[in-house]
Amino acid sequence: MEKILDTVKQPNDLKKLTFPQLETLAGELREEVLSVVSKNGGHLSSNLGVVELTLALCRSLDLPKDKLIWDVGHQSYVYKMLTGRRKELERLRHEGGACGFCAPWESEYDFTVSGHSSASLSAAIGAVMANELTGSGGRVCAVIGDGALTGGLAIEAIDHIGHLDKPLLIVLNDNEMSITKNVGGISRMLSKARSGMGYRKVKDKVELALKKLPGVYSATRFVKEHIKYAITTGGAMFESLGVTYLGPVNGHNIKAMEDMFKRALTMDEPVLVHVVTQKGRGYGYAEKAPEKYHGVGPFDVHSGVKECMEKTYSAVFGDTMCALAAEEPRLAVITPSMTLGSGLIGFSRKYKSRFFDVGIAEGHAVTFGAGLAAGGAIPVISVYSSFLQRAYDNVIHDLAIGGLHAVLAIDRAGLVPGDGATHQGVFDVAFLSAIPNVAVLAPSCLEELRKMLIYAVKEHKGPIAVRYPRGGEERSFDNGDFVLGKAKVLRVGMDVTIAAYGSMVSRAMDCADELEKRGIEAEVIDLRSVKPFDTATISKSSAKTGKLVFMEEVVRCGGIGEQLVTNLKLRGRDVKIKLISLPDGFIPHATMSELEADYGFTTRGLLRKIEEIL
Amino acid sequence: MEKILDTVKQPNDLKKLTFPQLETLAGELREEVLSVVSKNGGHLSSNLGVVELTLALCRSLDLPKDKLIWDVGHQSYVYKMLTGRRKELERLRHEGGACGFCAPWESEYDFTVSGHSSASLSAAIGAVMANELTGSGGRVCAVIGDGALTGGLAIEAIDHIGHLDKPLLIVLNDNEMSITKNVGGISRMLSKARSGMGYRKVKDKVELALKKLPGVYSATRFVKEHIKYAITTGGAMFESLGVTYLGPVNGHNIKAMEDMFKRALTMDEPVLVHVVTQKGRGYGYAEKAPEKYHGVGPFDVHSGVKECMEKTYSAVFGDTMCALAAEEPRLAVITPSMTLGSGLIGFSRKYKSRFFDVGIAEGHAVTFGAGLAAGGAIPVISVYSSFLQRAYDNVIHDLAIGGLHAVLAIDRAGLVPGDGATHQGVFDVAFLSAIPNVAVLAPSCLEELRKMLIYAVKEHKGPIAVRYPRGGEERSFDNGDFVLGKAKVLRVGMDVTIAAYGSMVSRAMDCADELEKRGIEAEVIDLRSVKPFDTATISKSSAKTGKLVFMEEVVRCGGIGEQLVTNLKLRGRDVKIKLISLPDGFIPHATMSELEADYGFTTRGLLRKIEEIL
Repeated sequence: MEKILDTVKQPNDLKKLTFPQLETLAGELREEVLSVVSKNGGHLSSNLGVVELTLALCRSLDLPKDKLIWDVGHQSYVYKMLTGRRKELERLRHEGGACGFCAPWESEYDFTVSGHSSASLSAAIGAVMANELTGSGGRVCAVIGDGALTGGLAIEAIDHIGHLDKPLLIVLNDNEMSITKNVGGISRMLSKARSGMGYRKVKDKVELALKKLPGVYSATRFVKEHIKYAITTGGAMFESLGVTYLGPVNGHNIKAMEDMFKRALTMDEPVLVHVVTQKGRGYGYAEKAPEKYHGVGPFDVHSGVKECMEKTYSAVFGDTMCALAAEEPRLAVITPSMTLGSGLIGFSRKYKSRFFDVGIAEGHAVTFGAGLAAGGAIPVISVYSSFLQRAYDNVIHDLAIGGLHAVLAIDRAGLVPGDGATHQGVFDVAFLSAIPNVAVLAPSCLEELRKMLIYAVKEHKGPIAVRYPRGGEERSFDNGDFVLGKAKVLRVGMDVTIAAYGSMVSRAMDCADELEKRGIEAEVIDLRSVKPFDTATISKSSAKTGKLVFMEEVVRCGGIGEQLVTNLKLRGRDVKIKLISLPDGFIPHATMSELEADYGFTTRGLLRKIEEIL
Repeated sequence: MEKILDTVKQPNDLKKLTFPQLETLAGELREEVLSVVSKNGGHLSSNLGVVELTLALCRSLDLPKDKLIWDVGHQSYVYKMLTGRRKELERLRHEGGACGFCAPWESEYDFTVSGHSSASLSAAIGAVMANELTGSGGRVCAVIGDGALTGGLAIEAIDHIGHLDKPLLIVLNDNEMSITKNVGGISRMLSKARSGMGYRKVKDKVELALKKLPGVYSATRFVKEHIKYAITTGGAMFESLGVTYLGPVNGHNIKAMEDMFKRALTMDEPVLVHVVTQKGRGYGYAEKAPEKYHGVGPFDVHSGVKECMEKTYSAVFGDTMCALAAEEPRLAVITPSMTLGSGLIGFSRKYKSRFFDVGIAEGHAVTFGAGLAAGGAIPVISVYSSFLQRAYDNVIHDLAIGGLHAVLAIDRAGLVPGDGATHQGVFDVAFLSAIPNVAVLAPSCLEELRKMLIYAVKEHKGPIAVRYPRGGEERSFDNGDFVLGKAKVLRVGMDVTIAAYGSMVSRAMDCADELEKRGIEAEVIDLRSVKPFDTATISKSSAKTGKLVFMEEVVRCGGIGEQLVTNLKLRGRDVKIKLISLPDGFIPHATMSELEADYGFTTRGLLRKIEEIL
């Protein structure tokens, strides 16, 4: 039998459907989301939560003339299905398949890139003003989660939206979570609002009572003027910033939402509609443990997600933090809403008073760490590489200038499979290297990470970053003690020097193994310390072999390769050099093996490049 | 006669003074602030505004055991005078004199670096938690301006502060301005609060009236619980985030503030005290035009600040924007609260509907620009180099990945006199070069800036940055038309190639003039386009001369020098190379001529380096 979903070619087609048909369609969409995600991996809970919301929005708006902007596009799978991308979703997060986030190059229905949280409101008010400047009509709606609201960027935008006072529909998708349980004052405020769904009735009652007291009601003008604060506790913040608050409304009742959205869209001002949804809705496993089904790998729908047995860098990070916390009472760990992904579940339970989930607020995570460090604690700030970009000035201004002793534990450094351009951790070496006073380390195996974290917490003075990849180790090395600025010759050879750091070291060793089979002896050097790095050891080795290959899994520009070439040149060293790195372009979503093939990071690909100077 | 100020060796000494003595002291402090700033230049209006506030805080706290954290330390001159730094202030902003911002290396009374806005609250809650972890006592107080509250970082911190619910005193120094007139919903909210200084009385009246209606008062529990929202309109946002709001209080009444601070410090929770101050207080010129006296050069106290007659890069930027706006209706200009400093006063008056001062919110400035661009407008985002660090991910994620056509007009690029480490514009070339899709231009004279802005707005597609220094041009050049990626040979010579960009080009020409006197013919190349840059022209020239000097006014790491050396090496070009750039360290405050002398950027200093390869 044909699915209703098959009849939906574009979002406006949804307007022809009856509410019972929409309920059926919601079921079909959930089934398809589950099928797509269980096959390809991806974001499950958030997409199951917004099925009805997406339908109500598509019916209330006139797409693509109106603009619908999803904050953190990982909740946009349903939207993609309704905007002509069902086929691409079959290969979600794979090369050539749909991107797991909003992507304007994919569809005219996607307005801006949205891989990082909290940016939708800024883009939305930009769209409103662009419509005004260009004279093109169309309304604008942004959907933002309660978790994303903890990001300062979103509040900066609300402040501006209140000031400009133009029509704009903001849908607050409140599922009481970022990725794990939400924290912070904003969260508490919303929870108050949720608990009082009957407000409006109470309001009427109070107003009536006050009217019977004309003396008070008129004399105290402010009561009249500001009664709405009392009746919309949850909306107080928005209202005080100049944004009208409506809600809360049940995010699984299409009709109720549609009524509210349509009303909001007729208002000549910015309006926030508070929608309450349930993450993981419709899939038992995900309803019970939505955070476990936030971002998942492929899994069996019937038995659910299996525990990952691989020992990851994240897990070693979490374990090492627990071990260090036991001996160092001043140690504190900070995460911007990445407790699970960063391997910190154990730490968060064992060291509650020293664990700080600050919400999606990378800037605050770093500057809060600076305050801890200035006060004599030892903060470890755990953050993904691509999200650290959001705290760049905090690292420079709040940590580095004062030379404060804080540790940046940078997860997801280098290539990251599946998520695409917004999540690649390929800029951190460039942007951190430029900052004075900041040391940067890169472990080549799990045991190295442990050693480096111990060094960073217990021995180092000043700001220090340890960057490590997603996943586990390919090989392990016995590098001996860690010394800042000292590289380690892992393998001795006379024919060519291959220097690398982090995840590239095991690839370098694989290449050396292959070269050996061909009778070529490669000397392999593990930098370990990326800033400062050990030019002397590399210089000495390459003077011996006469040929230097340098490999890194970041963009070339500003990377260690260029710095190394410059150092050697200024020392008057003249050796043949081959730099292997990522090109000057954004790296799209694909699996790890697809990425390795595309960028020549397979052993075969690397050997081909090495051969160029042999 | 001895001043009272002479008797104050440390802040606790203030506790011995009577209120009449404090009034006299306030006058002495104002006089000294005026004397220091008129002699050295610096921030005037904000310091004149916080004299009484500083006295009240120093008396309410036990410094340095308690921590007092100033958000944007440019309001800390009075505090510096009271914490043993009067002598250093005599040479404010000069080498060896006091820093114009808070600087922990200068005094134990300064807790963190504070050159950039909105960071104090994060540092403060960090200090609170550090006290808890280390067991050291002491209370914490942060002073933040209403302007700084528009920075998302501050709201991220308030969200976390509300969540942790620990004692912390936040003083909101509300002077109704950032640097120029404040904008945004937060500003509106505070102005409501200010206008209702008599709220408390009204509250009592209402509560009494409600009590006479027991049915309503008890039945509608929420009225009782949330009545405070109605009576503290201005505090609604803070209260809803879990921070208790007190005030507003007159910021020039020492006793009133002291009473309020002491009360707040006994409360076992985070408390925000709303203090209303007047910028420029006590100096007629500054009271009338506080924004004009925000940051000033040396001036005559009796006649006030004179109009700057020098034609600056900022002025050319503003003029060019006006000219472009006249022919391009889609052009819009955005500033994060830097209308005056960025040369945009004229534009802001002439093109009101296309001018957006978003408050101190650099992240939003860029992402709002992205929204404008995605909607078909042409945004020019005007921002100082060191503040663009705060929008790094916004450039990557919101502009560059989507390849949106937006112009970053980066003022204060390169060395910046007076302000010190926090304000040097020396990282932008490194952090922007690493980002794919972003073009970077650097004009070598005022006319070049005009040409480049026209190119960026009218011809270029995609994100593009134009970076230019503070102040005016040293020399001017006729470079002909601007072509992206093309360098210009400004002067032909056979003996040595000197390549440079931006402000270094005139220095390179000065060097060439000097060399000519010695019979050495230098070829001078102006890069113009920094990304992409023209390796071919430099390669060709240096192949001819055999010697290459490359000069840039940024940190070496990640700069163009390293990229150039690498490009030449990979092309197999072997020439003698000398890189001249800034070292890997933070650059302290000093005058421009002090900086040039210290970093070898005088003609003599540069020649000494050039001679090394001649």
